[in-house]
Amino acid sequence: MAQQHLDPTDPAARAVTGDALGGYLRAQATEFLRALRLHRENGGGAANGSAESVDAARALRRSARRISASLHTFRPLLDTDWSEAIRPELAWLSGTLAMEHAYAGRLERLLLALHRLSGATVLPAQLGTSDVGGAGAGAGSAEVASGPPAAAPTPERGNLTVGAAKAGALLERQLTLARTRAHSTALQALGSSRFHAVADNIAVLASEVPLTSAAATADLCPLATAAEERLTDAVAALPLVTAGHPYNAEALIHGLSPDPAPHPQDAPWHQVRLLLRLHRYAREVLHGDNSPVDVRLLAAGQALNRHRDASEAAAAAAQAARTPRIAPATAYALGVLHADQRHEVEAARFAFQQSWQMQTVGTP
Amino acid sequence: MAQQHLDPTDPAARAVTGDALGGYLRAQATEFLRALRLHRENGGGAANGSAESVDAARALRRSARRISASLHTFRPLLDTDWSEAIRPELAWLSGTLAMEHAYAGRLERLLLALHRLSGATVLPAQLGTSDVGGAGAGAGSAEVASGPPAAAPTPERGNLTVGAAKAGALLERQLTLARTRAHSTALQALGSSRFHAVADNIAVLASEVPLTSAAATADLCPLATAAEERLTDAVAALPLVTAGHPYNAEALIHGLSPDPAPHPQDAPWHQVRLLLRLHRYAREVLHGDNSPVDVRLLAAGQALNRHRDASEAAAAAAQAARTPRIAPATAYALGVLHADQRHEVEAARFAFQQSWQMQTVGTP
Repeated sequence: MAQQHLDPTDPAARAVTGDALGGYLRAQATEFLRALRLHRENGGGAANGSAESVDAARALRRSARRISASLHTFRPLLDTDWSEAIRPELAWLSGTLAMEHAYAGRLERLLLALHRLSGATVLPAQLGTSDVGGAGAGAGSAEVASGPPAAAPTPERGNLTVGAAKAGALLERQLTLARTRAHSTALQALGSSRFHAVADNIAVLASEVPLTSAAATADLCPLATAAEERLTDAVAALPLVTAGHPYNAEALIHGLSPDPAPHPQDAPWHQVRLLLRLHRYAREVLHGDNSPVDVRLLAAGQALNRHRDASEAAAAAAQAARTPRIAPATAYALGVLHADQRHEVEAARFAFQQSWQMQTVGTP
Repeated sequence: MAQQHLDPTDPAARAVTGDALGGYLRAQATEFLRALRLHRENGGGAANGSAESVDAARALRRSARRISASLHTFRPLLDTDWSEAIRPELAWLSGTLAMEHAYAGRLERLLLALHRLSGATVLPAQLGTSDVGGAGAGAGSAEVASGPPAAAPTPERGNLTVGAAKAGALLERQLTLARTRAHSTALQALGSSRFHAVADNIAVLASEVPLTSAAATADLCPLATAAEERLTDAVAALPLVTAGHPYNAEALIHGLSPDPAPHPQDAPWHQVRLLLRLHRYAREVLHGDNSPVDVRLLAAGQALNRHRDASEAAAAAAQAARTPRIAPATAYALGVLHADQRHEVEAARFAFQQSWQMQTVGTP
């Protein structure tokens, strides 16, 4: 399907030239500046941003990613010095802005998993008010042994539920601290002269895109097709036959090896996730506002997002288990949680394989 | 396929009467007595039985199960008082003889899983010679903190591998002790007057089966069909739609709940495993030595055996994690191991669903 639209022999596609790239970049730059203004107007500088400032930060990241991706994919059509200078700055910005959101999402994912693994006995809301010292005790410190909770049916039976609650409180403490730090870092970044230089560059981009002289009449399709080929090559190198066999138990291999997370086996999948995004943005450039939604591409992307999220959540659980002086019941719960998230990783690979296969088979 | 052979309107099947049941029971009783003699001749009374005595014990269990199952399925054709008296005795015997084998298998399964989860760094052979005190320290006691092992690359990195090794040593100690106790119990059982009464009964059965007067001309098919219907009814009550969706994450639900293993959700699957066995033995009675091998029935049975084994291994890992004063790294490894085995449970349900579906679809 995507192949069809990027086909250089397709007369409809042949019309897309550097002008379309210029229009796309101007639109994304305008969107970036709008989001930046919104972020400032909605108290983006407060300790905890409002819903509007969170949305604005997401929009900032969204346009920064698209600008950076387009500069990469259509590099030969742009002023080299300019685009080489701004790309790492955009990567720094979107990376810095993404951290707070990532920690929040990771914590939510882990608490939901603990909830699911504990039946209905440990609610995320309860975890937040547990008697383990709260966020003020500082991440990395050992949890305080606070005696058996009143609700434990018997000491032995209640053991693991206490473990799940303590694991949740430990993760909440560590990830909330990390999130708070990421928030401060993002605020510092947005107030820095480095950021102002990026914003100035984007303001220029909103009115004038530094295209090469040949770009106006150059065909975008070969560059977009090259981006798609980098994706298909990377996908071809993935262990998709294994991933297509349910319960292949690959994702948890080395789950107890001395080499800590992130698992090296995850890297090619993370790479495909980035290449899929580049391909998706290249399609946006070519098709503009008429860009057809490819549901299968969307499903594949969602599977890879889930893969990334589960991979990082599993690593966070393993990391929390290395906190000194935790109780064995807490460590046990973190072990179950780690393995659960690694199986989510495996499930996401299976989902990707299924959606990708459909995509290939479904191509006319 | 099975349905076809048990069809009462099938002229080939109509010939099978109580005589065939008598022949089957005599053959199984003879096999039981042969296995018992072999067991005695091959030092079945030694602390650790030889390979021959292990085989003989397996053959004893095998025929005891078949006799017991046939008495159950074809109950109306047998002397009621006699068969009601001997069935619980056979269940006691095969249950007692199975324990040693079960503990050995469980330990092997868990050590292999730890090996797989640790990459190549922890071999089962290494676990057996670890410095944690050996089997003599007694199961249930806390492991001895014995300092960092020489091979650990860095204290933090080596942490979890030490955990895997200690978890393996703890499981080995607990399950080896349980196995040794089960071996003693089995030896005591085989020397008991209770067992001699069973053996006397089986010796009578080998020459004369207490069939009712009507049995000789009675059709076995309706009773065999009833056994099959009990199986299909129980399968129909299983959550097979869920089981057929890979990575449904059902098996680990309540993995951290206060209610310890065995998981109540496993019970219907264990029940189907027993009913499948009864159906299989009823087919043996009907078809005698010509019993066709139904590979799909075999695959379904193997999936249910794997389900049972993984369920019990997961419970053993959870149980070991409740050992007082274990190190957090040990508890973490046991948590990963527990979750891994619960996913094996889920994988086994998926495999059963797949083989069962094939069976239904494949029936002409």
